[in-house]
Amino acid sequence: MSETNKQFLLASRPKGEVRPDDFRLVETPVPTIADGEVLVRNHYLSLDPYMRGRMDETKSYAASQPLDEVMIGGTVGEVVESRHPKFAVGDKVLAMFGWQLYGKSDGTGLMKLDTSRVPMQAYLGCVGMPGITAWYGLNRIIEPKDGETVVVSAASGAVGSVVGQLAKRKGCRVVGVAGGPEKCRAVTEEFGFDACVDYKAGRLYEDLKAATPDGIDGYFENVGGPVLDAVLRRMNAFGRIAVCGLIAGYDGQPMPVEQFRSVLVNRLKIQGFIVSEHMDDWPQARAELAGLVGDGELKYRETISQGLESAPEAFIGLLKGRNFGKQLVKLI
Amino acid sequence: MSETNKQFLLASRPKGEVRPDDFRLVETPVPTIADGEVLVRNHYLSLDPYMRGRMDETKSYAASQPLDEVMIGGTVGEVVESRHPKFAVGDKVLAMFGWQLYGKSDGTGLMKLDTSRVPMQAYLGCVGMPGITAWYGLNRIIEPKDGETVVVSAASGAVGSVVGQLAKRKGCRVVGVAGGPEKCRAVTEEFGFDACVDYKAGRLYEDLKAATPDGIDGYFENVGGPVLDAVLRRMNAFGRIAVCGLIAGYDGQPMPVEQFRSVLVNRLKIQGFIVSEHMDDWPQARAELAGLVGDGELKYRETISQGLESAPEAFIGLLKGRNFGKQLVKLI
Repeated sequence: MSETNKQFLLASRPKGEVRPDDFRLVETPVPTIADGEVLVRNHYLSLDPYMRGRMDETKSYAASQPLDEVMIGGTVGEVVESRHPKFAVGDKVLAMFGWQLYGKSDGTGLMKLDTSRVPMQAYLGCVGMPGITAWYGLNRIIEPKDGETVVVSAASGAVGSVVGQLAKRKGCRVVGVAGGPEKCRAVTEEFGFDACVDYKAGRLYEDLKAATPDGIDGYFENVGGPVLDAVLRRMNAFGRIAVCGLIAGYDGQPMPVEQFRSVLVNRLKIQGFIVSEHMDDWPQARAELAGLVGDGELKYRETISQGLESAPEAFIGLLKGRNFGKQLVKLI
Repeated sequence: MSETNKQFLLASRPKGEVRPDDFRLVETPVPTIADGEVLVRNHYLSLDPYMRGRMDETKSYAASQPLDEVMIGGTVGEVVESRHPKFAVGDKVLAMFGWQLYGKSDGTGLMKLDTSRVPMQAYLGCVGMPGITAWYGLNRIIEPKDGETVVVSAASGAVGSVVGQLAKRKGCRVVGVAGGPEKCRAVTEEFGFDACVDYKAGRLYEDLKAATPDGIDGYFENVGGPVLDAVLRRMNAFGRIAVCGLIAGYDGQPMPVEQFRSVLVNRLKIQGFIVSEHMDDWPQARAELAGLVGDGELKYRETISQGLESAPEAFIGLLKGRNFGKQLVKLI
């Protein structure tokens, strides 16, 4: 157990691409706790695309991350000291302690984890926010029916890989879009999608058309840009598009949608959503996902970078699509 | 009563803008009727933007208009001969006889009209397809709540003017977008909108912002293009956009949407619709609209061109926004 806490603060708001010096590493004393509080040693930090939005000052779906404060982020860890009746030393907990080694809490925002069948860090991935995001967008917006075709962008990612596996379980033809042959291979071979289109191969529309002979009924959007336009050209009447992320435009690049006409021609429904606004659905979603992981029915991949110091580069890599599956930082 | 029928056929599919010689006027004998049929002399032909889509061969929401056949279109007229038990000479009827003076029917697709409180041609306008389109998009997609702000493009048109008046009755702040000071004046003074933005004045976004101090909760889209982008920048969280038409792109012009990010940032719902696919709602919508017109509570304007021969130019004018309110062709 280290003697000091380490934290990454937001040092500056990015102008365009995120750079390592937008973050500042500081050392602080390990927090001391009062009656009714617990001290947690974080084991894993989750890195997620939503953090990019928080770094900007512009209007987004959530408050900006304040400058000079600890970067926001989900964590899992172990209680190392407790003066709280509901938590004991050794308990595994999910929290939002951010980019740091330790966190303390009066219990608010802390969830005790059952790690008997599900590893701790899965609660940051396919049994956590990314998995529940997949569950919500698929079940509440796309509402796929047996025999329909569902397409998922960023298909090898923490969200996309779950969307596809859940859609397969509903009897859909599932087509992923991912970057590069390695990711595409995993999408079909590991995650069991019917096909995967490599958007880097230069034949995006043609390949998507070949992979969706009956058109597209549901699309789970993580990316935006040319992938969205190619999908819009393939949408069937009454198709549904769940907009979960638009990572292609996160650095402020213009990202015009050329094929918007498809919304009218095909009477599409397009809906943006933020999973944290639908907490009512979390218990059901988490229970289903944990059951599938426990039974070995839901596959996932992780990219784990070692040590808090590696977080900025790992985050930048995530934004560039260098990770594979859920991006985690191991803190211990 | 003229001795011959006159008809406009589709002579060629437009390349870009519609031209008068895309239509061909022919004279044919007045149809003779058999037992169980009625002959109708059409009094008014409705001209509507959807006809532009039918003229193309490309995939749209409905079958293409076949070449060398009578142009599709809604009509109202009077039964002049009947061998059908349910229709008598003198009955006023709504039909889809298209761009011609006479039509015959076995009763299918014919609706007898009550013209005691509502003029015949209103069944082609605010008590007909355009009015029901307004009713459906507003009530079934935008679902406005008291105190919300609703924006309508093509606000002086047959659809837009009804959208705004219905939204006002629901307690909304209603802002129109229209082209030119004359149309804008009518939108506020005749139709009772709270404000109207003249998109031709060159300050679209600034004027829209000033007219929507609390942002925009619902948008009824008839136009697309720069108006849609300006609206997307003003949308509030959980806003709803009903996409009824995208007239700005009907001639095949590219119409990129720059501000698609707003869908995610503001968790918008965007939904395209075609009112003819929601016939279940027509009786309720038509009854409400007829009641409002009969009571003088729903205002409407008409642009009436005289004689079937004027239809092509009137239609081209409609596509260019030269009409004011419902575009009709008087056939008698």
